[in-house]
Amino acid sequence: MRVHNFGAGPCTLPEEVLTDARDEFLDFGGSGMSLVEMSHRSEAYEEVHQGALSLTRSVSGAPSDFEILFVQGGATLQFSMIPMNLLNAGERAGYVVSGSWGEKALSNARHHGSVYVAWDGAGDGYTSMPDPGSVVVEEGSRYLHVTTNETIGGIRMVEFPATDVALVADMSSEYLARPVDWDRYDLIYGGVQKNLAPAGMAVVFVRRSVVENGNQDLGDYLRYGFHSSSDSLGNTPPMFPIWIMGKVLARLDAAGGVEVLERESAQKAALLYSAIDGSDGFYRNPVNIRDRSHMNVVFRLPSEELESRFVAESTAAGLIGLKGHRSVGGLRASLYAALTLESVHRLVEFMADFRT
Amino acid sequence: MRVHNFGAGPCTLPEEVLTDARDEFLDFGGSGMSLVEMSHRSEAYEEVHQGALSLTRSVSGAPSDFEILFVQGGATLQFSMIPMNLLNAGERAGYVVSGSWGEKALSNARHHGSVYVAWDGAGDGYTSMPDPGSVVVEEGSRYLHVTTNETIGGIRMVEFPATDVALVADMSSEYLARPVDWDRYDLIYGGVQKNLAPAGMAVVFVRRSVVENGNQDLGDYLRYGFHSSSDSLGNTPPMFPIWIMGKVLARLDAAGGVEVLERESAQKAALLYSAIDGSDGFYRNPVNIRDRSHMNVVFRLPSEELESRFVAESTAAGLIGLKGHRSVGGLRASLYAALTLESVHRLVEFMADFRT
Repeated sequence: MRVHNFGAGPCTLPEEVLTDARDEFLDFGGSGMSLVEMSHRSEAYEEVHQGALSLTRSVSGAPSDFEILFVQGGATLQFSMIPMNLLNAGERAGYVVSGSWGEKALSNARHHGSVYVAWDGAGDGYTSMPDPGSVVVEEGSRYLHVTTNETIGGIRMVEFPATDVALVADMSSEYLARPVDWDRYDLIYGGVQKNLAPAGMAVVFVRRSVVENGNQDLGDYLRYGFHSSSDSLGNTPPMFPIWIMGKVLARLDAAGGVEVLERESAQKAALLYSAIDGSDGFYRNPVNIRDRSHMNVVFRLPSEELESRFVAESTAAGLIGLKGHRSVGGLRASLYAALTLESVHRLVEFMADFRT
Repeated sequence: MRVHNFGAGPCTLPEEVLTDARDEFLDFGGSGMSLVEMSHRSEAYEEVHQGALSLTRSVSGAPSDFEILFVQGGATLQFSMIPMNLLNAGERAGYVVSGSWGEKALSNARHHGSVYVAWDGAGDGYTSMPDPGSVVVEEGSRYLHVTTNETIGGIRMVEFPATDVALVADMSSEYLARPVDWDRYDLIYGGVQKNLAPAGMAVVFVRRSVVENGNQDLGDYLRYGFHSSSDSLGNTPPMFPIWIMGKVLARLDAAGGVEVLERESAQKAALLYSAIDGSDGFYRNPVNIRDRSHMNVVFRLPSEELESRFVAESTAAGLIGLKGHRSVGGLRASLYAALTLESVHRLVEFMADFRT
């Protein structure tokens, strides 16, 4: 029996996609071999690869002046590659530290360029995003880095910083689950293992002029131009997650794309927040209401003992991955793209039963 | 019907491994989800991960003072990470340029440190490896980089450079297919997509003291210490290739390990070289006999027209991936670990038929 997977990532994937991949696993398209055994220069793989690139563009709505790159190493490698590529000598960049991921983006960047804190939410324990006017962007900054959704804190950026400086955004945990105002960005990135595919790469959207004007004095893998000039085929790509992501995106496209995913995410989140808010304080969500994440819903119970019992009993009931991040404790339900509304209903029922 | 896959990488994989993975794909160990949907912090995945690490150590025979790292980005990212981590200020490293991969290692390293050419085989078109005494290692060099097997040129290093300087070796295309004299190395690396697993990562063996004394002023993903201190779980690892590699290594271990793989590789190569040498000059292998690769056997036919016909007819006969690299032309048969002796027999028969 398939469980309800509320894990924070890697994510649950559509069952039909997994079944498809399973059925094709030994013999891809009558080729007599598995896709993962093929040359990345073969026609069959090229079609899968270009199909995934093209679906990424159409589903995301990325304008034609953005390159789309498939890069291994997840968001973590991007934390280094972004300042390495974007910051030329003498240039500085600001970072909004809205939680654990914003802090990692900043502390990694310190090794590769001149960066500063434009806002830090430590004062309220990272339970809110900045008010637009409270982000302090230094004159002449090359970019301002934001994390649009903090997976651990369970907050999302609804109102964006008031600045003319180009934004760079980590959208890992809500990738393709909300529309993007592309004009404001130089680069958007995220690991695929939350909403889109198995672990093994990041998708990077980067403005072509940024690639061209960026630092070129980098080894191949670290240089955006290496990936953009080769359609991310400059070396052997991570074929398996690309293959699966293509299938996930094709479904998402057929279902109506980003707008539909955004609406469904809001609906799933509303159902869960409403169960929390209607529990007479038994369940508590600690974050600023405006900034409540649609992807990672965090909540506390009256005691840690009850929280432990909740985790044990929900797991036994087939509701998996609800334990909060080890750094903050409590509970967390991640509502990624392939998690169904039905799964959220089951969780809400469980929560009601548990409370009584 | 399963084809005979002589492609240069990604590689053919053992059919039993693929069947196993297919059968477990939707429901890993009764968990109610696919392994690729699991948290990388889950017990089930941790067991897979630690199992793969432990098998990598036992099969390779890596001594306990070597760390074993799973790093995304393939050998190409290592071309940058090696000089970034190993070369402190003022230090230099030599590179043996024995072909296309040695050249890439060198040209990438130029962006991240002070490096020089210790030997270059361009003079004879990269058809031989250096004689041990002909490699010129500068006094005080931090390391000497070698590519033990050149996938495109079809040569392997049998005799190693005469030097006391620590070696750093790219072994991608013959990974675990030959014993290693560990004392001579500071670091050995390779993409897994040739002998071991689907594409998506490199395995890096690095001496612990090298990690500790290396450059620490790097973002997390680029710093060996980040991977070694977390057992390569510092961020979400590429779970799929790790899972498959564990299965491949378990089989390799049961079959007798590196010594057996080396013997089988030599046997497969000998069969094919003997067919080439016994063809009265119809097939020609252009490389220095001492340096003939056991993994990538390159050969030419009397004309390019015959070569094209050979590719077309062998493909039609279910012998796949024999076209030589686009940069050099001709034919190439890659004899990676999971390619059976039976497949080589089929190729040799086809070659005899084609010739007559």
